[in-house]
Amino acid sequence: MGLFGAAGVIYKPVESIDLGPASNEFYLKANVKDENNMQIASETNSLIELFAPRMAGFLVKIFAWFLESRIIGTLLLYILKRNNLIHKLVSNATLEESPMFVPLHPFVDLKEQQVEHIDSDASPSERVQRAINCLPLTSEKSPDDLKSSSFRRWTITDYSRAYSSGEITPLRVAEQFIKAVRESSTGALPMFFFISYDAEDILRQATESTLRFKRGDPKSALDGVPIAIKDEIDCSPYPTTGGTKWLHKVRHCTDDACCVMHLRSCGAIIVGKTNMHELGAGTSGINPHYGTTRNPFDPNKIAGGSSSGSAAVVSAGLCPVALGVDGGGSVRMPASLCGVVGLKPTFGRIPHSGVLPLNWTVGMVGILAGTLEDALVVYAAISGQLQSYEPTTLPPKLHVPLLNSANLISDIKFARYGEWFNDCSDEIRICCSNALHLLCEHYKWKTVEVTIPEIEAMRLAHYLTIGSECTASLSSYLEKLDFSELGWDARVALRVYGSFDSNEYIKAQKIRNRQMEIHKNIFDKADVIAAPTTGVTAYTIFNDALKTGELDYINGAALVRYQIAGNFLGLPAVTVPVGYDKEGLPIGLQFIGKPWSEPTLIHIAFAMQALCISHYRKPKVFYNLLNKN
Amino acid sequence: MGLFGAAGVIYKPVESIDLGPASNEFYLKANVKDENNMQIASETNSLIELFAPRMAGFLVKIFAWFLESRIIGTLLLYILKRNNLIHKLVSNATLEESPMFVPLHPFVDLKEQQVEHIDSDASPSERVQRAINCLPLTSEKSPDDLKSSSFRRWTITDYSRAYSSGEITPLRVAEQFIKAVRESSTGALPMFFFISYDAEDILRQATESTLRFKRGDPKSALDGVPIAIKDEIDCSPYPTTGGTKWLHKVRHCTDDACCVMHLRSCGAIIVGKTNMHELGAGTSGINPHYGTTRNPFDPNKIAGGSSSGSAAVVSAGLCPVALGVDGGGSVRMPASLCGVVGLKPTFGRIPHSGVLPLNWTVGMVGILAGTLEDALVVYAAISGQLQSYEPTTLPPKLHVPLLNSANLISDIKFARYGEWFNDCSDEIRICCSNALHLLCEHYKWKTVEVTIPEIEAMRLAHYLTIGSECTASLSSYLEKLDFSELGWDARVALRVYGSFDSNEYIKAQKIRNRQMEIHKNIFDKADVIAAPTTGVTAYTIFNDALKTGELDYINGAALVRYQIAGNFLGLPAVTVPVGYDKEGLPIGLQFIGKPWSEPTLIHIAFAMQALCISHYRKPKVFYNLLNKN
Repeated sequence: MGLFGAAGVIYKPVESIDLGPASNEFYLKANVKDENNMQIASETNSLIELFAPRMAGFLVKIFAWFLESRIIGTLLLYILKRNNLIHKLVSNATLEESPMFVPLHPFVDLKEQQVEHIDSDASPSERVQRAINCLPLTSEKSPDDLKSSSFRRWTITDYSRAYSSGEITPLRVAEQFIKAVRESSTGALPMFFFISYDAEDILRQATESTLRFKRGDPKSALDGVPIAIKDEIDCSPYPTTGGTKWLHKVRHCTDDACCVMHLRSCGAIIVGKTNMHELGAGTSGINPHYGTTRNPFDPNKIAGGSSSGSAAVVSAGLCPVALGVDGGGSVRMPASLCGVVGLKPTFGRIPHSGVLPLNWTVGMVGILAGTLEDALVVYAAISGQLQSYEPTTLPPKLHVPLLNSANLISDIKFARYGEWFNDCSDEIRICCSNALHLLCEHYKWKTVEVTIPEIEAMRLAHYLTIGSECTASLSSYLEKLDFSELGWDARVALRVYGSFDSNEYIKAQKIRNRQMEIHKNIFDKADVIAAPTTGVTAYTIFNDALKTGELDYINGAALVRYQIAGNFLGLPAVTVPVGYDKEGLPIGLQFIGKPWSEPTLIHIAFAMQALCISHYRKPKVFYNLLNKN
Repeated sequence: MGLFGAAGVIYKPVESIDLGPASNEFYLKANVKDENNMQIASETNSLIELFAPRMAGFLVKIFAWFLESRIIGTLLLYILKRNNLIHKLVSNATLEESPMFVPLHPFVDLKEQQVEHIDSDASPSERVQRAINCLPLTSEKSPDDLKSSSFRRWTITDYSRAYSSGEITPLRVAEQFIKAVRESSTGALPMFFFISYDAEDILRQATESTLRFKRGDPKSALDGVPIAIKDEIDCSPYPTTGGTKWLHKVRHCTDDACCVMHLRSCGAIIVGKTNMHELGAGTSGINPHYGTTRNPFDPNKIAGGSSSGSAAVVSAGLCPVALGVDGGGSVRMPASLCGVVGLKPTFGRIPHSGVLPLNWTVGMVGILAGTLEDALVVYAAISGQLQSYEPTTLPPKLHVPLLNSANLISDIKFARYGEWFNDCSDEIRICCSNALHLLCEHYKWKTVEVTIPEIEAMRLAHYLTIGSECTASLSSYLEKLDFSELGWDARVALRVYGSFDSNEYIKAQKIRNRQMEIHKNIFDKADVIAAPTTGVTAYTIFNDALKTGELDYINGAALVRYQIAGNFLGLPAVTVPVGYDKEGLPIGLQFIGKPWSEPTLIHIAFAMQALCISHYRKPKVFYNLLNKN
C-alpha cells in the first residue's frame, strides 16, 4: 500500500496534468478474472472484494449477518475501508476543487452538423413525427422476408407501417405479446422478463389503438407500439417495486411518470414493468424475489443490470423499445450484454419526475432499443424540461440528428485512452478496436490517443455518492423494515452505503468537479470518447446465487468500468452492438459525448450500426410479434 | 420528547401548510436566559447545551478531552445526538423534497422601482462612480461640525471630498489610522481589532493615493479610503489565518481575493486583516490566539462574530467600510452588535475566489459599513461574476438603487412572523417593533402577519451543512495538525462537525429545498421579511473565556436565530441600527429579501436609517481619522 503513502492522495492541479498519450499518469488496473493479479484487482475494487471476490449462497448470508451486527459490523467496515483505496483516493484526499454536487451543464449550442431543431413546446407526438422525418428510408422488406443469414428486429417504423397498411392490428400484436411472455415464463429456464404485467390493461390499450387505426387516426408513429418500463419508473396501474418486495407497500405509485405520460400521449402500449436488480444496487440483474432475468442470447447467462428486464425484452423482440434508469451504467451495461442499443442522454434532458428517487445526482432515464433509429424516436418523445430542483439551463430547442442526410458529418475525432480501452477481455478489446478502426476508415474520422487520469478515483467517488444518496432516500423506510424482506446482497450493499460520513460525500463531490474539468480538457482534444461498454460479456448465472443474490466484485468492476463518466459527470453516452464473443454473446461499443451532444452521438452510433448491422445475430430466445400466422 | 415520536418527523407537503397568521404550525422557542424554561431551550438548541448551557475555562478543556477520546467521545456524541432534536428534525426525518445542494437562484428581473442598471462589464471604478451618482446629496457639513448630540461617522463621500479639496491627504489619514490602532491595542482593555496590519504597506498605499490626488487623478471615490478585510479573505501581503495559529502555514496566501482586487483597482487603502472567531466556528468573536475583539460601544462586551474585527473597526471609526464573510450570520450579527450596517448579498453575487473555502454552499462575502450609502458603493465595487463551480444565471446587469430619487418606492409589504420576531429580549422586541411600525407609518408601507414554519429544523440543517463542509475543507490539514494549536471551543466544534454522516448531510439538503419552497410562498405574500437581527445585544466577555474560548449555547442560539435564511437559502439580507438597549448597546433590524432584490433591500434599509440616524450614538471607543488637528 506504499503507492500513495498512509494518508490520502494529494491531487495535483488539473491544468498541470498531461492528458496526452505519453502522460505519466498511472492507470489503476482492475484485472478481469486473472488469478495471478488478484492482489491488484482487490486493491482497485471496492470494499468487500478484499474479503472474497465472489460470494453467493450461505457465504453472503454470513457476511451480511456480520456486517449488520453493531459492533463487529462497524469494526469490519472500518477495517475494510481502511485497507481499501476509498480512503486514500477519496475520503482523505487533498484537492483544491470545490465540490460539484449536481452535474448540470448549462446549454452551449455546439453547432452540430445535420441537426433538426424542434421547438421545446412541440407535443410529444409532434416531436415523434419530426424525428421520424429524420430517419433514412428503409427498405420495405419486413424482417420476415429476410433470409436467416441476416437478422433484424421489428422497428417502430415496421409496426407503424404494418398497422397503417392493415397487415396486422395492435390487438393482435398484444395477444401475441401476452402469449410470448407466458411462454417465456415456463420451461427449464424461465426468462423472468417482467415483475408485473396486466394482460387486461394491455388488451384495453391495444383495443383503443386498433380503433384509432380503424378510424385512420393514429396518434403518432408510436401508436400501438409495445413499450416496456423498468420497475423503477411509476406507471399505472402497476406498483413500483424497485425490484424489492416492500418498497411499493410504503411508497405508492399514484400516477404515471412524466416520461410514461409522454409515451402514452403518443399512443404507445405500455406492456408492463420489467425486472431489475433489487434497488438498482447491482449490475447482474440477479433478483431473488422476482427471478433472475436471463439473457436472450444464452439463458444460462445474466442479462446485466440493473435494467435487466428492459434490455432482455428488447433483445428478445417483445418490444422495439423499453425504458430503463441509468445511475451507474444500468441502461448501457444490460443493453450491451443483450446486444441492443442503450442511450443515456445528458443529465436533465429527460424529466425525472415519477422515477423512484433512489438518488438525485447520478441517475437518468435511458432508452433501450433494437436500433438507433428507434432510440431516436423515443428520445424525441420523452425529452423535455427537467422538473428542476436546481436552476439549470436546458437547450431552447430539442436537437435531433438528421440520420437521412446525404451529407455525413465530417471531421469527428475520437478520444481513445489505450490502457483503459484495453482493460477488458481479449475478445472485447479486439472486437471494439476493430469496430472503431472500421468506423474511422469508412468515414475518414480520426482517433486521438489521450490519457484520462483518476478513473478509479472517480468510480469510488461515484460509488460513495450513489450509496449515500440511496441511504438518504430509503432511511425513513429502512427504520421500520423487516430486513428479511431484503435480498442478502442488497443487505450487504445497504450496510456499506450507510457507512459513509458527510466528509466523504463532500470529498466525492470535489472529485466530481475535478473530473468535470478533466473531461472538459479531453473534449478540447476530441469530440467523443470511445471505449468498450463493458469489460466482460454476459457471464454465467450460478444456482447458488438465485436465492441469495450474489456479490461478484471482479465481474461487477469489469461491467461498471466504462460507465461512470456518463453518470457522475452527467455526460450523454450510447452503446451500440458491434460483435460477439466466441460463445456468441454480444459486445457493445460505447461513445461518450460532450453535454448536449446527443445528435452527434446518435449520428456516430448510427454510422457504427450501419457498418455492423448485416452481421447481427438472432438471440436464442426471440419472439416475432408481427408474425401474421 | 414525545412531541415527534421516537423516530423522525414526517413533514407534510409544503402546499398543505398554512403560512398565514392563524396557522397551527408549531414555533419551537429557544428561550433567552430564562432559567425556568431551560428545558425547552435545551431541547431546541444543538447538541451540547444539554450538557451545559455555558462552558469556559477548565470545563471546556475537560469536555473537549472527552469528545476527542475515541470510545468515550463517540459514545458521548451518540447520546447527545440521540437526545437532541437534530435526529428527529433532520437525520431521521421523512420528506418528499429532493435535496438542493447549492442555493443558486436563476436571475428573475424583479422590475424593481428606482433602480439604476450598470453593465456587467463596467470596471469596478466605473461601477463605484455610477453608485455614487445614486446617492442623495448630503450636507457639506462634516461630522466635526456636528454637535455632540448628533453623531455620524465619516463616510466614503466625506473622505473623497476632503481628499479632493486638499483638506487632508490619504497619507495623513493613514498615519492617524496607524496611531489609532496602536493606541487601541494598549491599556487595560485592548481592542484586538486586527490579526495583522503592516504599517509600511499601509503608508506605501497611502503615499501612492496621495500622489494621485496631487495629480488630480484619483481612481474613484474609494481612492485613499481605508478598508479592512476579514482574515478569512486572501489579501497580500498578509497571511490568511482564518483566526487560527496554523492554517496560513499549510495554505499560503499567494494573491488578493477577487473582491480585494476590485477594491484595490478603485484605489482603496487596504489597512489589514481583521480579527475573527477561529475558523468562523463561533458567534462571539472570542479568540484565544489573537485576543478577543471588544465592542466599541462597551469594551467589556463582545463584538459578535465571526467577523468581529470588521464590525468593530467600522464602529470605532477606523474604516468607513470593511469586508466580512457571512456563513451563518457572521457579517450581520457583529454589525448589529456594534451598531453598524451589515449587507449580505444574494448567493453568488460577489465572487468567492480567494476566500478561505471553509464551506461552499452557505458562505458569502458581506459588507460592514457605517451607512447604507457606503455599503452601496462597496457593493457596486465588488459585485461580479461568481467564479462558478455550478451553472448559474447571474443578472445581465448590476442593479443598484437610486437612493437620490425624489419618488420613494411604493407599496412595500413586510412579512412578519410574530412568534419568531418576538423571540428575543424585551428591549430588542420593543425597539424593532417600534422601528418597523415607524417605517410603515412614514412611508405608507404595510406589514403582513405570516407563519414561517420549521425555522429550528432549518437551523439544525444549516448547522449540519456548515459543519460537514468545514470538516471536508479541513480534513486533510487536521490529520497532520497538533491539536494544541487549536482553541478549545474550536476543538469541540470540529469534533461535533466531524460526526455527521452522509445521510444526515443529504437530509439537510432536502430541508434546504423545502425551506426554499416555503420562502418562495412567503414571498408571494410580501416583498421582504422583517425581523430583529439578533435575539440578544452584546453580552459580557468573562475572563475565563479569554484563553480557552467559550461554549455559550443559549446566547449563541439567540444570536443566530434570525440568520439562517440568508445563508442556507442564499437570500440577500441587510441589518441596520435602529436603537440601543438600556446599557447603550446597539440593536439592529434585519430585512431579508427575494433573490436578487438587493436594490429594494437597500432602499428599505436606507429609509429605515433615515428615520433613525439622528439618534445614532457615538461608541465609547471612537477615532476621528479626518481630524485635521
